[in-house]
Amino acid sequence: MTAVYGGIEAGGTKWVSAIGTGPEDIKETVIFPTGEPEETIARAVDFFVRNGPVAAVGVGSFGPIDIRHESATWGHITTTPKPGWGDIDIASALRAALEVPIALDTDVNAAALAEHRWGIAQGLDTFFYVTVGTGIGGGGMANGELLHGLMHPEFGHIRIPHDRERDPFDGICPYHGDCLEGLASGEAIRARWGSSARPGSDERVWELEAEYLASGLANLICTLSPQRIVLGGGVMNEPRLLPSVREKVRTLLAGYIRAPELDGDLNDYLTAPALGDRAGVLGSLELARRVL
Amino acid sequence: MTAVYGGIEAGGTKWVSAIGTGPEDIKETVIFPTGEPEETIARAVDFFVRNGPVAAVGVGSFGPIDIRHESATWGHITTTPKPGWGDIDIASALRAALEVPIALDTDVNAAALAEHRWGIAQGLDTFFYVTVGTGIGGGGMANGELLHGLMHPEFGHIRIPHDRERDPFDGICPYHGDCLEGLASGEAIRARWGSSARPGSDERVWELEAEYLASGLANLICTLSPQRIVLGGGVMNEPRLLPSVREKVRTLLAGYIRAPELDGDLNDYLTAPALGDRAGVLGSLELARRVL
Repeated sequence: MTAVYGGIEAGGTKWVSAIGTGPEDIKETVIFPTGEPEETIARAVDFFVRNGPVAAVGVGSFGPIDIRHESATWGHITTTPKPGWGDIDIASALRAALEVPIALDTDVNAAALAEHRWGIAQGLDTFFYVTVGTGIGGGGMANGELLHGLMHPEFGHIRIPHDRERDPFDGICPYHGDCLEGLASGEAIRARWGSSARPGSDERVWELEAEYLASGLANLICTLSPQRIVLGGGVMNEPRLLPSVREKVRTLLAGYIRAPELDGDLNDYLTAPALGDRAGVLGSLELARRVL
Repeated sequence: MTAVYGGIEAGGTKWVSAIGTGPEDIKETVIFPTGEPEETIARAVDFFVRNGPVAAVGVGSFGPIDIRHESATWGHITTTPKPGWGDIDIASALRAALEVPIALDTDVNAAALAEHRWGIAQGLDTFFYVTVGTGIGGGGMANGELLHGLMHPEFGHIRIPHDRERDPFDGICPYHGDCLEGLASGEAIRARWGSSARPGSDERVWELEAEYLASGLANLICTLSPQRIVLGGGVMNEPRLLPSVREKVRTLLAGYIRAPELDGDLNDYLTAPALGDRAGVLGSLELARRVL
């Protein structure tokens, strides 16, 4: 009998838990809002106990998280701005309750892994997955392995040009103010524009948003040199956004970086995820498979 | 008999060519200014012919260069702003004249490779080497292999915050104006400050320089999550610069990214090269060894 895995996409807004082995084989899924840590972890445990057994559980978590195996605080969420979740030992709590191996990585590394195994990043060895939702995060692979290094990318927190005459908004990041996440996350859009920031709303909302994202992505291209960038997250559901981001990235690069992938309209280079919003939880299942 | 290699650090200002196998075994070195492409390549060829034979030649070149082996323009310098050097096929010219395998990578990837083999990056799998000289470049490894992906990093061309009230300088990058290289390269410092930009000069020169570099490095940390960053290049010879950059990177990160390497003064995290200005040519020898 093939092993069955548990996966958790542990987001700042909701947790998605699933049991299965891949996109064509999901036996059960449960989605609930992220509450207090103890209660939230207990709900996920309960789901796996009722619908299991599972051979291992993978968690793709919001961060930052400590994923250094040699660290005394491995498996902890660390400096998150999310109230109540700082220094929470998510991995140990799951392992103690379920008594199976737990794999942990960032939600965006998990999503990148799923797109690599089943989606739009198959066959690539160096690519990046950016999510633009409540916050902004990035993960991916370099040379065929997930990006870890010191810990993991925290791409949302890069600094980009911010013209305060045009956009006097201070940014909402409690650590950095007007970093990319501080200026361009869903929360930043809501804080700056209020109710005018709905899909289909004012052109200026999406023009500014596309500019900030394009600055971040042009920097990413100059730093990591990814073969493709996948753009997910709720903010990307605005249909004007991705075409506008592509155009502005082209303008920013100004023809300096020459590669066939950057010729033309960038439709294949800056792409939507193939797995949609299932990438995170599918990647968590793959993390579980790999830990065994 | 062990093979002996040729290495070229092909810089925009000078070429350093050497014959040997590593830091303790350099048989000959020659340094000459970068002239017209044909003449410059011929001088390097002449050096290897007179002092060889060499089993292979590695070239660490200024860029951007095409290092995609499947590409029809492999081995070409591509969109360099350096007059006369655009679209020059440096690798084929060397191979035709010397009839040995030619390995090509960026000067900064070569320097990173040397620091990994013999220097300050030994044992690391994900790190970055930044050179701040006439231009600004970056290379490195992720997951134990050199960073390539789409082509190679062009770290000097990231956009960073630029307060034009404080620094009205437009930047000198012919492609991007006020990208990092446009604002903080040696050429940018000279263009902005003129003769006041000598080592030991005005405090404001180095304060602004440290700010721009720190913005770039904080972005690099959030994107690649390197285990260490090595800072080379002539501009870094100003003794006030590296301590000031460390302090400003700490301030920019604001404690958000928690890792033991980022505790304290960052002296071990943001470091000078161990191989000094020999890293480029030594890495080129290592590129040659690897191509065989």
